[in-house]
Amino acid sequence: MNDNPDIMEEERRPLRADAERNRRRLLDAATEVFCERGLDVGVGEIAERAGVGRATLFRNFPSKEHLIAAIVVERMRESVNRGRAALASDDPGEALFDAIEQVVGTKQTDLALFDALDEEWLTNDEIHAAHAELLSTMDELVRRAQEVGAVRTDVGAVDVLVMVKGVCEAARSFQHVEPELTARQLDLVRAALSTPSYQRPLRGKRATIEQFERASPVAEPASKTA
Amino acid sequence: MNDNPDIMEEERRPLRADAERNRRRLLDAATEVFCERGLDVGVGEIAERAGVGRATLFRNFPSKEHLIAAIVVERMRESVNRGRAALASDDPGEALFDAIEQVVGTKQTDLALFDALDEEWLTNDEIHAAHAELLSTMDELVRRAQEVGAVRTDVGAVDVLVMVKGVCEAARSFQHVEPELTARQLDLVRAALSTPSYQRPLRGKRATIEQFERASPVAEPASKTA
Repeated sequence: MNDNPDIMEEERRPLRADAERNRRRLLDAATEVFCERGLDVGVGEIAERAGVGRATLFRNFPSKEHLIAAIVVERMRESVNRGRAALASDDPGEALFDAIEQVVGTKQTDLALFDALDEEWLTNDEIHAAHAELLSTMDELVRRAQEVGAVRTDVGAVDVLVMVKGVCEAARSFQHVEPELTARQLDLVRAALSTPSYQRPLRGKRATIEQFERASPVAEPASKTA
Repeated sequence: MNDNPDIMEEERRPLRADAERNRRRLLDAATEVFCERGLDVGVGEIAERAGVGRATLFRNFPSKEHLIAAIVVERMRESVNRGRAALASDDPGEALFDAIEQVVGTKQTDLALFDALDEEWLTNDEIHAAHAELLSTMDELVRRAQEVGAVRTDVGAVDVLVMVKGVCEAARSFQHVEPELTARQLDLVRAALSTPSYQRPLRGKRATIEQFERASPVAEPASKTA
C-alpha cells in the first residue's frame, strides 16, 4: 500500500503490533496536520501523512470526530500519567506546581480539539473516565502538597482547578499581549496557593496598560471597521 | 401621557431637568426589565415601565443598542468613580481589593449587556473613553497599593486585570457549583497579590471534586441527551 521502509519492516511482525503501529501513525499524523493547518483539513491528507491507506484510516477511525476524540483521550491520559508520576515526587509542592503548568500548557494547545467535539462526544465514556481520573489525581496532588506544608490548608482542589481554568481562559484572550503573560499568571497561582517558603518572584516582564487596552474587546476607536 | 404624580410635579420644572429625568427613568426601567427578563424584551415595555411615551424613548435612544450602550457606559463610569474614590482611601491595599471585588461583581451582572453589543458598538468613542479611564484608575490603584507595601512590587496592573478577567470567566462557568466559589477566587487573587500582612484566610467552604465534575463540559455520561 506504501513503500515506507519502516512500515515494510513492520509487516513481518504479528498483525496486532502492525495494527497498533498504524493507529499510532494516524494519531501522530493527525496531531501534526491539525497543529499545522487547523481542524478543517481532510482525512485523506492525514492518511497520506501517516503513510497508510484510506481503508486503514476508516477501520481505525470511522469519522474525523473519532480521530479527534482519540487524541483528546490520549492527551488526558498523558496528563493523568504525569500527575501520577508527580505523586511519587519527594517534593509534592513543586510536583503540584509543575502539574498545573503542564495542564495549562496542554490546554492551550488542545483547546481547539476540545472545541471541535460537541456535547455528545465530550460525554463519551472514555473521555469522561479520563477526565474523572485527571480530577482525582489533581485532588491527591493538592492534598499531598498540603501535607508537606507547601500549599495553604484552606484551599481545595476545586479552588485550584477553577484558578487553572481562569488562567487558561485569560491566556487565550491576552497571551498575545506579552508572551510571558501566562507564565506570570502561573506564578500568581503559585503565590496564591503556596505557603511562604514556596513563594518566588514572578517571571518575565509586566505588560503595559496600552498593550492590554489594545487586546481588549473594548478596543481603540482606531480599530473600527465601520 | 401618564398620571404618575412624580412626573406631573416634574413638568413644572425647566425642560432640561425634565428631559434628564426622562432619560434617567428610561435607563432605570431598561436596567430593571433587562435584569428581570433578559435583553429580548421590546422597547415598548421599557417606555411603559418608565412611564414615558414611545416618542420620548426614541428621542433619547433611537435603537435598543443605544439604550444598552448607554447603560454600559454608565456602569463603567460608576466603576471609574468608585475607583477614584478608592484612590483617596487611607488604606490603598484594601481599596484595591475592594475595587477588584466590585469590578468582578459588576462584570457578572453586566456581561449580558456587553455581549449584546457588537464590535462596532464596543469601539464607540464613549465606551472606549470610559474603558481607558477604568484601566488607568486600576493602574493607579495598584501603584498606590504597592507604595504602601500592601501589594508585591513585581506585579503590574495588567497582571491584576488578567487575573480578574480569569476570575470572571471561571465564575461564569462554575459559580453555580458553590455560591461562595467566586468569593474564594477573589481571596486567592488577594493572596496572590498581597504582601504577608495583607493575607487572610479564604471565605466560605471548598467545593467537592464531584460538584466540579458535574459542572464541567466533560460531563457525566448520565447527563447525555442523546
